[in-house]
Amino acid sequence: MNKVRFGIIGVGNMGRAHAFSLLNEVKGAELTAVCDISPERLEWAAEQLPEQVLRFSTAEELFASGSIDAVMIATPHYDHPPLAIEALKHGLHVLIEKPAGVFTKAVQEMNDAAAQSDRKFGIMYNQRTNPLYKKLKELIASGELGEIRRTNWIITDWYRSQSYYNSGGWRATWAGEGGGVLLNQDPHQLDLWQWTTGMMPKRVRAFCQFGKYRSIEVEDDVTAYVEYENGATGLFITTTGEAPGTNRFEITGDNGKIVVEDGSLTFWRLRTPEPEFNATYTGGFGQPECWKCEIPVDKSNGGSHQGILRNFTNAILNDEPLIAPGEEGIRGLTLSNAMYLSAWTDNWVELPIDADLFHEHLMEKVRNSTFKKEASQGKALDVSGTH
Amino acid sequence: MNKVRFGIIGVGNMGRAHAFSLLNEVKGAELTAVCDISPERLEWAAEQLPEQVLRFSTAEELFASGSIDAVMIATPHYDHPPLAIEALKHGLHVLIEKPAGVFTKAVQEMNDAAAQSDRKFGIMYNQRTNPLYKKLKELIASGELGEIRRTNWIITDWYRSQSYYNSGGWRATWAGEGGGVLLNQDPHQLDLWQWTTGMMPKRVRAFCQFGKYRSIEVEDDVTAYVEYENGATGLFITTTGEAPGTNRFEITGDNGKIVVEDGSLTFWRLRTPEPEFNATYTGGFGQPECWKCEIPVDKSNGGSHQGILRNFTNAILNDEPLIAPGEEGIRGLTLSNAMYLSAWTDNWVELPIDADLFHEHLMEKVRNSTFKKEASQGKALDVSGTH
Repeated sequence: MNKVRFGIIGVGNMGRAHAFSLLNEVKGAELTAVCDISPERLEWAAEQLPEQVLRFSTAEELFASGSIDAVMIATPHYDHPPLAIEALKHGLHVLIEKPAGVFTKAVQEMNDAAAQSDRKFGIMYNQRTNPLYKKLKELIASGELGEIRRTNWIITDWYRSQSYYNSGGWRATWAGEGGGVLLNQDPHQLDLWQWTTGMMPKRVRAFCQFGKYRSIEVEDDVTAYVEYENGATGLFITTTGEAPGTNRFEITGDNGKIVVEDGSLTFWRLRTPEPEFNATYTGGFGQPECWKCEIPVDKSNGGSHQGILRNFTNAILNDEPLIAPGEEGIRGLTLSNAMYLSAWTDNWVELPIDADLFHEHLMEKVRNSTFKKEASQGKALDVSGTH
Repeated sequence: MNKVRFGIIGVGNMGRAHAFSLLNEVKGAELTAVCDISPERLEWAAEQLPEQVLRFSTAEELFASGSIDAVMIATPHYDHPPLAIEALKHGLHVLIEKPAGVFTKAVQEMNDAAAQSDRKFGIMYNQRTNPLYKKLKELIASGELGEIRRTNWIITDWYRSQSYYNSGGWRATWAGEGGGVLLNQDPHQLDLWQWTTGMMPKRVRAFCQFGKYRSIEVEDDVTAYVEYENGATGLFITTTGEAPGTNRFEITGDNGKIVVEDGSLTFWRLRTPEPEFNATYTGGFGQPECWKCEIPVDKSNGGSHQGILRNFTNAILNDEPLIAPGEEGIRGLTLSNAMYLSAWTDNWVELPIDADLFHEHLMEKVRNSTFKKEASQGKALDVSGTH
């Protein structure tokens, strides 16, 4: 194989961007088919995509068509796992949009299916190609920061107006998207939080507020406190209701602290690791000498969807290691599932979560999802500036 | 009266600094007496203070001496309320060190005594004279920020080594100090948190870790989540175990956000208040225009103890309004009491707290305070660089 023939399921906002990337930007990839249940969106595809790109109105037809080697799944979140499982069964390589799904029970089934397959399985965690977070991960993994003591991500710059939510009737409903800011805006940060630090919490206590700033039924404001196995603590603070908001990720360790904010990575590095200083210091108010280090970060070409599409294509063609293996999508989703469960039960949630219990709670929300918005159904937004 | 004759009870670390301020820095004040139960510290006073400053080994003798008009109480925290009540009974003006006490039950009794007295009653919240926080309070009170939505104070730059704790046997014990970072390092921030915003939480959910970084029995690491009456949420994150730590106070409101960090006050000001923008915006991902405004702050003479001593003296001499009325000390203490109670009960705590319940819990800790440190008892540290 010297070309990977791609199909895309779901040519809404993100699917369209991926279509053009596959057509124009990704060497070794070719877009041969798209699939959507919406006649309007297939109409769009007929008008905007090259003639030779086949169009299907069901995934079954696409999978059976023999026209593709790999499929990009860019549907509503609930459909990622069942479609991925079906695609794998058809011997297709599978790349899913984030989040991996809505509840871990289904995502685990998808992971099991992938484990039993020899096909490539990836997830569109394009922020893993962002040089800032790559560098952060490298610094932590190489031991520069020492043992981690605290993580604190304030990610409140996801401003969304009511008109955004009204642009699609499925948006911000339990039945449609299955969640709010955690599931739609934060999947990258939830992944990067665990990916850069290499740590998943052991328990979570979260405070979610539902429809606080907008007329929606899901959460638009969350504060989550976590505790890790090594004794470290963490915070994840997020909302779509604030402007201009903040995106500041601070990680403290034995050797100082790192702050990622405003596109910069700053390492306040202790000359002597704190435990060593403490063990030998005999004075009163002294503390370890600290150097403020501006860490160089390659500012070019960060966080692009094309980076993941290229890597996934190369994984199929040349067995290049995946930047974002699909199986790892369950981690970020576990974090958001745990946050919901903690808020709903007003209690601690231990990890791994009780996937059945979460699913029961979620399905109850879905059954009671009576929210009706005055929506301009199905309008595709220009997402060129989003992640 | 054209001179206020001051006595100081407790000439340990802070008492000594106040003694020199009263001797040399505060117009209208005169230091006429000191009192300490420690012969060594009275010996120090005999050697270091002017001859005419009287020395007493009990508060009773000081109060009965007729040598003072006002008393500065700089004893261990537990003693603030009983000494203040006794001093008020003797017709003395009273200035107490922070915190107001260890538990609100006693502090309320002190406040009741002050309310029944015509004497001045102040607390050494010298950070209320810090131009940064004065400006912040003014911006919020004048409505520049609009309705507050979120407060987030990361105050983790209180590094204390084990040798600091070992410098006094009473340090960081339930029986001696009655608490850790919340009670000894954070009283200013706990006060400023409510003073600058003008809001006390309605409930608190806190996570305290006891002796996490040091061999001490009290807390040295705290994350506290709060909810306010108006729907806003807040976080207070503190530790003595990290270096270099962070001191960053972010407040979000309808009109943007303010960040106080590194001695600067920055206001990200929305040109249109967010609720107004949201009500009229019809697009997809847009958000209100935002101006990054560097707010001028008088950098001189901020946060000094002398400022409070001068104000308290002028309050007595000229009825100048108190910057930090003693009765307000209960607010910050209520916050830390609530945090302990939440951690001990692993549950929400509503404000105002159940003062009796807190007292019961605390007394149990005091009874079980079996911690014995290898301490160099009673060494006075140089606190010239502290708050």
